[in-house]
Amino acid sequence: MNFNIFEQKESFGGKLLKLTHNSSVTHTTMTLNLYLPHQYFDCHTAESLPIILFLAGFGCNPNNPSEKSFIQPYANEYGFAVLMPDTSPRVKDGQYKLGDGANFYLDATQKPWDKMFNMYSYIIKDLIPNIGKSFKILDLKRMSICGHSMGGLGSLLLFLKNPNLFKCCSAFAPLTHPMVCPGENKYFKIYLGSDKLEWAKYDPCELIKAYVGPKRPILIFQGTNDKFYIGKELLPEQFLKSSKGTLLEGLVDLRLEKGYDHSYYFVSSFMSETCAFHAKYLGLA
Amino acid sequence: MNFNIFEQKESFGGKLLKLTHNSSVTHTTMTLNLYLPHQYFDCHTAESLPIILFLAGFGCNPNNPSEKSFIQPYANEYGFAVLMPDTSPRVKDGQYKLGDGANFYLDATQKPWDKMFNMYSYIIKDLIPNIGKSFKILDLKRMSICGHSMGGLGSLLLFLKNPNLFKCCSAFAPLTHPMVCPGENKYFKIYLGSDKLEWAKYDPCELIKAYVGPKRPILIFQGTNDKFYIGKELLPEQFLKSSKGTLLEGLVDLRLEKGYDHSYYFVSSFMSETCAFHAKYLGLA
Repeated sequence: MNFNIFEQKESFGGKLLKLTHNSSVTHTTMTLNLYLPHQYFDCHTAESLPIILFLAGFGCNPNNPSEKSFIQPYANEYGFAVLMPDTSPRVKDGQYKLGDGANFYLDATQKPWDKMFNMYSYIIKDLIPNIGKSFKILDLKRMSICGHSMGGLGSLLLFLKNPNLFKCCSAFAPLTHPMVCPGENKYFKIYLGSDKLEWAKYDPCELIKAYVGPKRPILIFQGTNDKFYIGKELLPEQFLKSSKGTLLEGLVDLRLEKGYDHSYYFVSSFMSETCAFHAKYLGLA
Repeated sequence: MNFNIFEQKESFGGKLLKLTHNSSVTHTTMTLNLYLPHQYFDCHTAESLPIILFLAGFGCNPNNPSEKSFIQPYANEYGFAVLMPDTSPRVKDGQYKLGDGANFYLDATQKPWDKMFNMYSYIIKDLIPNIGKSFKILDLKRMSICGHSMGGLGSLLLFLKNPNLFKCCSAFAPLTHPMVCPGENKYFKIYLGSDKLEWAKYDPCELIKAYVGPKRPILIFQGTNDKFYIGKELLPEQFLKSSKGTLLEGLVDLRLEKGYDHSYYFVSSFMSETCAFHAKYLGLA
């Protein structure tokens, strides 16, 4: 077991495990939450469980989705586990303050960030394989990904850069085109420098154009009263447009939800539909 | 309209209104959340809506239940509104620091608390009648009450002291016998002085013995891994015992839930059963 369980909470008939582990990618201790539905305990030696990777937003930590997204009842209904990583390494050093909870699911190339702020490789090369080794009942061949806001960016970019890893992808109010959005520019510059070719490696609107892989669906929920949407920081229509002429044309389902904002009140309201979507492509519905 | 809507959030097809109003009982501005299910907007002029009063716990505010309890989907399923008051007046003055979020749903008799820290009368004489006047579709004749922890104390005591006001009562991990619990003693003393007869007026284990009113049910959920339960600060078995020989004998349903703690992970896990209970006694199921 590479993970230390520092807290365990009963929740909706399953268990939420609060974990830490030492990452060789971020060179620090990482925290995460893992929700295991009742099926995990009912039939520990029997059937394997699919898994949804749920990426949290800017400034959040693994507790935001586990306390506020309301995914647990659906995890129990369909029978899937939910893996909720942190949003950055947590470094108690003033010079890293800007990066706290704000690593944008990329690998930094610039000093001093490049040593630790590598959430992209952390998730792909460290967290996922090691969680599979430690919790053998989890079926990494039936995995999907979702995320909120900055975590929606993570969800899209991890999905598009790893065409065979996730059965489907969903996002709540994702940042889809960070290259052109002032709010994200600042961070992309500190992590990746000024070369926009480097930025394109983590920009879903760019990545989708180069996508080569299976035809798998992407579901996006966007509230119309979301101040970041209104302020053109999210640009989901641009992402939909970018999918035209690509292998994923027709597979991006953008749902504009009237009056909803950017908060977890929005996320939790569409968790039922989101989980039905994931369950379908994970072979559970 | 006695209430000012300072924020409005779409949630699960209904709307969460964040309200303030000036209270003549607490002599200050009070905040609260009011959740209105989709039925409120579907048939504004038609049928009236029952209402559940949801009291939050120690140190909490109206956002804890609205963000973490997941009552909204059930409010929409059955068609009831949810009224979530604050847990105390909020006074920016060091001498009131101890009372912040900790008024225990009682009326203080001791200085300097007696002027403002009167959450019992605030809810009964100010909030409920005025919310009924401002939102005329709410049917105050079909009202029930629930609460968590200190709010569970509030739920039990308001129910027992007002026998005709609430159709039923439920509580998550309530403080049932504050007179004998060290954690609450401190607060009861500052608010009510040293006379234990005054304390008994807000102690459910005492109140149930003197209850005269309709035979209406009380549902209590208690996690067995709750540190306050283990530390004998909650004493639900004592409450059950106190109900023996009273008008409510046989109507107190105490459900011990194995392994659950004191958090909203526990509350949200049993919200479905709680709402089914309330819906039944509100005539909705």
